[in-house]
Formats: sequence, C-alpha cells, structure tokens
Amino acid sequence: MKISLDELARRFNSKFSGNPNHQVNAVAALDSADTNHISFLANSKYSSLLKTTRAGIVILSPENSNSFHGNKIIDKYPYVMFAKVAALFQKSKNTLREVHPSAVISDSAVIGKDVAIGAFSVIGDNTVICDDTVLEARVTIGYNCHIGKNCLIKPNVVIADECKIGDNVILHPGCVIGADGFGLARDEERWIKVPQLGAVIIGDDCEVGANTTIDRGTMDDTVLENDVHLDNQIQIAHNVRIGAHTVMAGCSAIAGSAKVGKNCLIGGGVGIIGHLEVCDNVTLQSMALVTHSIKKPGSYSSVSPLQETSHWRKSAVRIKQLDKIAKRLARLEKQESKK
Amino acid sequence: MKISLDELARRFNSKFSGNPNHQVNAVAALDSADTNHISFLANSKYSSLLKTTRAGIVILSPENSNSFHGNKIIDKYPYVMFAKVAALFQKSKNTLREVHPSAVISDSAVIGKDVAIGAFSVIGDNTVICDDTVLEARVTIGYNCHIGKNCLIKPNVVIADECKIGDNVILHPGCVIGADGFGLARDEERWIKVPQLGAVIIGDDCEVGANTTIDRGTMDDTVLENDVHLDNQIQIAHNVRIGAHTVMAGCSAIAGSAKVGKNCLIGGGVGIIGHLEVCDNVTLQSMALVTHSIKKPGSYSSVSPLQETSHWRKSAVRIKQLDKIAKRLARLEKQESKK
Amino acid sequence: MKISLDELARRFNSKFSGNPNHQVNAVAALDSADTNHISFLANSKYSSLLKTTRAGIVILSPENSNSFHGNKIIDKYPYVMFAKVAALFQKSKNTLREVHPSAVISDSAVIGKDVAIGAFSVIGDNTVICDDTVLEARVTIGYNCHIGKNCLIKPNVVIADECKIGDNVILHPGCVIGADGFGLARDEERWIKVPQLGAVIIGDDCEVGANTTIDRGTMDDTVLENDVHLDNQIQIAHNVRIGAHTVMAGCSAIAGSAKVGKNCLIGGGVGIIGHLEVCDNVTLQSMALVTHSIKKPGSYSSVSPLQETSHWRKSAVRIKQLDKIAKRLARLEKQESKK
Repeated sequence: MKISLDELARRFNSKFSGNPNHQVNAVAALDSADTNHISFLANSKYSSLLKTTRAGIVILSPENSNSFHGNKIIDKYPYVMFAKVAALFQKSKNTLREVHPSAVISDSAVIGKDVAIGAFSVIGDNTVICDDTVLEARVTIGYNCHIGKNCLIKPNVVIADECKIGDNVILHPGCVIGADGFGLARDEERWIKVPQLGAVIIGDDCEVGANTTIDRGTMDDTVLENDVHLDNQIQIAHNVRIGAHTVMAGCSAIAGSAKVGKNCLIGGGVGIIGHLEVCDNVTLQSMALVTHSIKKPGSYSSVSPLQETSHWRKSAVRIKQLDKIAKRLARLEKQESKK
Repeated sequence: MKISLDELARRFNSKFSGNPNHQVNAVAALDSADTNHISFLANSKYSSLLKTTRAGIVILSPENSNSFHGNKIIDKYPYVMFAKVAALFQKSKNTLREVHPSAVISDSAVIGKDVAIGAFSVIGDNTVICDDTVLEARVTIGYNCHIGKNCLIKPNVVIADECKIGDNVILHPGCVIGADGFGLARDEERWIKVPQLGAVIIGDDCEVGANTTIDRGTMDDTVLENDVHLDNQIQIAHNVRIGAHTVMAGCSAIAGSAKVGKNCLIGGGVGIIGHLEVCDNVTLQSMALVTHSIKKPGSYSSVSPLQETSHWRKSAVRIKQLDKIAKRLARLEKQESKK
Repeated sequence: MKISLDELARRFNSKFSGNPNHQVNAVAALDSADTNHISFLANSKYSSLLKTTRAGIVILSPENSNSFHGNKIIDKYPYVMFAKVAALFQKSKNTLREVHPSAVISDSAVIGKDVAIGAFSVIGDNTVICDDTVLEARVTIGYNCHIGKNCLIKPNVVIADECKIGDNVILHPGCVIGADGFGLARDEERWIKVPQLGAVIIGDDCEVGANTTIDRGTMDDTVLENDVHLDNQIQIAHNVRIGAHTVMAGCSAIAGSAKVGKNCLIGGGVGIIGHLEVCDNVTLQSMALVTHSIKKPGSYSSVSPLQETSHWRKSAVRIKQLDKIAKRLARLEKQESKK
C-alpha cells in the first residue's frame, strides 16, 4: 500500500507542509527511514536526527516543526498520530473467520457472527463469544465465560470458568485469566486451601501481556476497569482492582486485595503489597516496592542506586549501621550545642 | 445448596449461638454479605465491620465472639473454619471421568481408575497416572513420569520426562515442571550446555501456581517436600530443595542448589542466591534478596523504603556517599574525644 | 552405556591417571557418586570432598590433581569436560522423526529433512523449518517464520509471525517469541495501541528458558546475537539487542530499546531501564536495577543488604533521613573547622 502526504493529512485531519503527492509505503525510525518511509519525532531529545534523516515524511509537534524542512505532518501528539498511521500499514492477517474443525466446542456455547476459532481450541459449557472476536490456535476457555465483541485472543491463552472479558480486548500468548488465587489457611500442622469462588472481570479496550497471570477472587471478583494495559509476566493476585487507563510494565506484581487507582503508570518489576490502596495518577518507578498506601498523586521510588560492586559492598555495610550512625551524629551535635 | 447453623456446627464440631435453623447458601465478605451468606472475621483489625454486616452467620474466634450478636460459629481458627465451609459451597465441576478421544496417550502409559484426561492432552511412554486424578484440556506429560492419586492438573501444564508428582497435588495453568536447569560451562570462546540429568520430585498435598517454573536437577533432583505451596510466576532453579509446609508468594525465585527449610513464609518477589541455606521457620519480606545463608529463624528484609521520587533522588546520592559519611563522622568523633 | 577411563581420555584428548580399564556408566556429584560414576571438581572450595568421594573417576584441574589419588582425568576446564562427558550419558529420547498426524501444517510451509513435528502443533503459511529440527507436542509457529537447522522446540512454545530462529537453538516449554511489544500512545483521554511491525531475530546456538517472553520490535527487530542464553521467566521488551555470548539468569528483564553488550553475565531478577546501553563484559549482580548506561566493564550491584526485619525498620527510617543526616554532618564539620 502506498499513501500520499495530502491523503494522510486529510484522513487524520492534520496540517502538513511539503510535496502533497509524496508517497510512502511503510513506517520506520528516523535513523533507518528512507524516502519511502514515514517517521516521527515524539521527544525533542532526538531532534538532532531531523538533520540527517532520509525519511520521506516526518510527523512532528508544532514546537519541533521548524527544525525539519522536508515533507511533514504537524500534530499536537506526534506519537498518537504515528500509532494511527502505522496501523494503516500493518499487514492484515486476513484471518479466515472460520471455526477450525479440530476445535472442541461445547454444544451449549454460544458463538457470535464472524468469530474465528483456531485449531485445538476448547470452549466450555454455556460460554458466550460475541461477534467479530478472533481466537487463534490452542485457546482454552472454561464454562460460563463471556467474551465480548472484537477481541483478539492469541495462542495458548487460558481463561478459567466464569470469567468475563469486555469488548476490544487483546490477550497475548500464554496469559492465564482466572487461575485460583493464593489462599491458604494455616491449620495446626498444615495448610488448608481456601476455595476461590470469585472470578476475573476485564473491562473494554484492555490488553494483557504474554504469560501474565490474573487470579480469580476469593469471594468477590478481581477487576480490571476499562482501558487497562498490562505488559508481559505480570502477576495480579486475587481481589485486586485496577482503575481505568492504568498501565503496568513487565514483571510487576500486585498482591491480594490491593486497589490501584485510575491513570497510574506502573514501572517494570514494581511490587504492591496486599490490601494497600494507591490513589489515581500515581507513577511508580521501576522495581519500587509499595509498602504503605499512597494517597497523594506523584512519582514514587524505592530502589537502592546502582554502584560498582566493590563500592556497593562498603555502602551496604554502612546501610546496616545507619541507625547507629544517626545516633552518633546526634550525640556529637548535642555535645557541640553545649559548648 | 442450603445449610443451617446447627448443621454447620455439627459437621465441623464447633460451638455456635443464635437461631439453629438459620440457613445460608453461599459465603461472602462481611461488607458484602446478606442474610443468606456466611462470613468470617479472622483479623480483629476489621472488627468494626461486625456492627454493620448483614451476614446471616459469622465465624468468629472466642476473643471476638462478644462483638457480634447475630448468628455465629465460634472457632479458634476462623479462617481455617471458613476455608472448610467455603469448600462446601464450591460449585462442583461435575467433571466427567473420561478420556477425551483427541488425547494422544502412549500404549505403555498406565492410567488408573476414575482418571479424566482432557482434550488435546499428550501422555508419554511408561508414564503412570494414579486413580482419581484429573487432567484438564491440553496437558503434556513426558515419559517415565509418575503422577499420584487425586491430583488436579489444569490446562497447558507441561511435565517433562521422568518427573514424579505426589498425591493430591494441584498444578495451575501454564506451569512447567522439569524444564532443563540453566547449566552452562564456559569454554574458551563460547558456552557449552551442561546436560540436566536429574528430575523434579514433588511431594503430596503441594500446589504450584500459574506459569510457575520448576527446573529439573543437573545430576540429583529438584525437590519439593510435602505441603509446599507456590504462587504464580515463581522460578525454582535446578537442585533446589524446599522443606515441608513452606509457602512462597508470586514472582519469587530460588537460584540453583539453594535449600529452604520447613515452615518458611516467603513473600512476593523474593530472591535467594544459589547454594545458600535458609533454615526452618524463616519469614522473608517482599522483594528481599537473600545474599547469605540464614541460620536463625525470624523475619528478614532488604528493600529500600518507598519515597517520593524527588526525595528519593537525594537519598540515593547519599547512599553512594555512605562510606565516606561514616568515615567523616568517625573523624569528628575522634577530634571531639581529644578535647 | 559403559565407558572406560582410557576411552574417555582418548575421546576428549585429555590426560588421565589410574586404572585405564575402569568403567563408569553415569555421572554424579562427588558426595553421591559411587564406583560406577564419573564426577568432577570445578571449584577448589569443595576440594575436601575429594577425600571422601567414592566416585570411580574424577575430572580435575591440574591445580587440584594432586589432591585425589583415584582414577582421574586432568583437564584445564573440568566443568566443560564434565558437560561433554555428561552429554554422552544423556538418555537419548529416540525421537521418531515423524510428523504427527494431528499437526495442522499450512500447505505452503516448507519442512526440511528429518524434522519431527509433535501432536497438536500448528505451522503457519510460508514458514520454513530446516533439517533435523524437532518440535515436540503442541508448538505454535505463525506465518513467514524461519526456523534453522537442528533446533529443539519444547511443548507449548509460541513463535509469532515473521520471526527468525537460527541453527541449534533450544526453546524451552512455554516461552513466547514475538508477542507484541508494549507500545502505547496517550491520546487525550485514552491509550492508542502502537502497532508492533518488527519481528524477533534469534541467532545460532541460543537457548530461551521456560515461560520467558521476547517481544517483537516496533519498527526494527528485537535481536539476540549468537550463543545468547536466557534462563526462565525473563522478559525482553521490544527493540532490545543482546550481544553474543551474554547469559541472563531467571526473572531478569530488559526494557524497550536497551542494548546489552557481548559476554555479559546478568544475575537473577535484574532490571535494565529502557533505551540504556550496557557495554561488553559487564556483570550485573542479582536484582540490580540499571538506571544509567554502563560504559565501563566490571561488576555492578544495587540492592539494599539483607537485615533482620526489626533492624531493617530502623535502617529504612534512616535512609529517608540520609540527605538531612549528610547536611547535619557537614554543618558540624564546618563548625569544627572554625575552631
């Protein structure tokens, strides 16, 4: 597919300047693009690349617009604009909307219009799959589930019994929705499993990364509100609730019954202790551990700084002595003040 | 199913007070329960909920018993009692004890009585699956494995060759038992793979969470003793041994050849370095890194505290200066002592 | 299989001493070996075991050679030698080089000589699988993929469209190659998914652990150079590049567009922030977080030291006060210097 500068601008209702007939057929980064490519500058930090790029068209913010003299599209949100343009060029997979004959589908399941079900998938009793949803190969869905419209469910996904998935949801390979929460009661000598009787409810427009796990609730449900995006290898424990538009990077984890607000940005490897609450509009930096509820929007961190190991050993010894160090300092100050 | 207060008390040999004929048909949390529900109070911190709950029956400890005047069951371990009651109400899945015709089962495999094998499962040569065990859809078991009685193996589980699983074990979706340990020997220029010739041995009454991985041993085996419970996304490396009744929360990891004792409580995201030993009855707080063997029972922590990022930046700079700070303090003290 | 001391020495071109006809039939650790076993000592720390071992043959370095008086093989790299010997004893799985009749293979896929494809595998359009490669049960490969020669792909692996895998690559169960990178652009009110148009390229002789995930690039590709070894549960984000001979232990993660050099040793649970560069020959200790580019080879650490929780609480309070503590110290020093 080829598309011209003026056609792009018209389609997305944007300003442009340059040769309206210049055509591009793919997207590329500024430093690898050639004249057939459209690229973008989202972060002024990289604006020096504008001098050397050979991109046929560049998407820019009004602020950076004067730094580039080639064909350009000017938009307040260049990265959003780029995402939309890139979607035009995404090779459509031309998925056949068919049910593969090997799939094992309960007689009581209800399958909507234009649904695709891939090879070796298994669909349980009374489960509903709404129109235009695609299940690729080897998807397992339990009984009494409800999968919304226009979802994309990739290979090896497991959705356990009674879970509900909204519309336009993407589930990446190997993610597990609705495994039992980790509930154990300690009897005198051994552990008793606490039945996990809730389910998982995922809102519209959510995305769940590869090999991420979201456990079902103990009595109530585990809930992702609309437009929540989870990266890969994330663990969401039972009874967690995540507010709309919150995004979490890979390998982060939320322990049981914690509540995370709306529009939070959670970095990679972050941990949130059980039963805590994190309010709206909180940013958690990578590998932070949240050990108390956060009631004030803002950015939070907890890791120790990176050091050469030989230097780190000395700092680590001192961290253990910190309380004593502080007390020794206080004593000196007291002596000083007496003089 | 409905069950009355006196029938519950009789069945579990507990004390009760209130209307013996009051019936409940489900469990619920104190704040969402209504008169048809049975709830519980395990932590006195939440005892104020007793004033407002509409639960038909509440399970309480003797200490909290006087704080609630409705129908109640009094038990020393309310959470254990609740786990047992909740199990009564768990919807039975009415699993057909059948072998799905699509399953590929070696002629030399030995399948016990009342075993279920789900669609698209694969069972290797000489593997034994004992009575009453249920494999849901799409389970892969290698050759020479032994799976005990009354196990529940969920979709997408992989058990590699020669592993042994005890009785009453639950394996959650996507967990991998017996992948190769990470063994590499450095030749002059490149890595040589070290064959992983051991297996994984899992005791009775264990539970392994979704997408958790337990590697086979290099020469000896990787071992979980009885009643070990692992949450989701955990990594257990080759030749690790975990003692009976130890539980580990999500995303924790144990490196090669480390030994963990009995009755340990390991928080989420914890790491244990290879070849170390952790004795019995140790609690490791979330995201702690164990860098030396622990020989004394107790609770251990290592993370840096959560701070607002602007404040954290200053602390982080100072952590790097700590050794110098301590030396400067010592010098001042010395000068002071000379006066 | 039995093999004698002189035959082993001849096969690997090594020195030996002892009874040339002594035969062994398996490998074992020094402390569990008997006379039928061959063992090794790679780390002098364990040399006391040489006094008590009952191993029939021991592989030793020249330095440790005099500490053992039984049958021995002397080699500069005992662990490498051991890896090669162990491979001789590894039970060959006698995999039938057949395509299981249940596999669903596109008519346009090209399958090489002596390729095995296990039950319930799915191979997409135009994908090429080269000679001698083994796919075990339930492997999913998308369209336009290229899988090299002599690879071993274990159950439940998912390789998404257009990814390229080199020769002699091992992919462990449940790993996901080529899921979408985590790319989101923030529109006024909600997130827009950024199409992930690149792929994953894996070089020769690489190994990817169980349930590890490697995301496809946004525009360019995510690349593992030759002889890269990744343990289990690792997350590699879009557009990452990992240099040849680098190894990463379990649960580590590299965020988007970061570049890691050659011959790096990355410990368990390590995090590397997006867009950073780590040069060649860097060692990162377990659970370190790399927050700035590393330009100097060496070893780096960042975690806080393990402490008993009661003691840790005090240190944690002091860490938050560190900037103030440092300023108070500076003030005292200033007063002192005025005297």
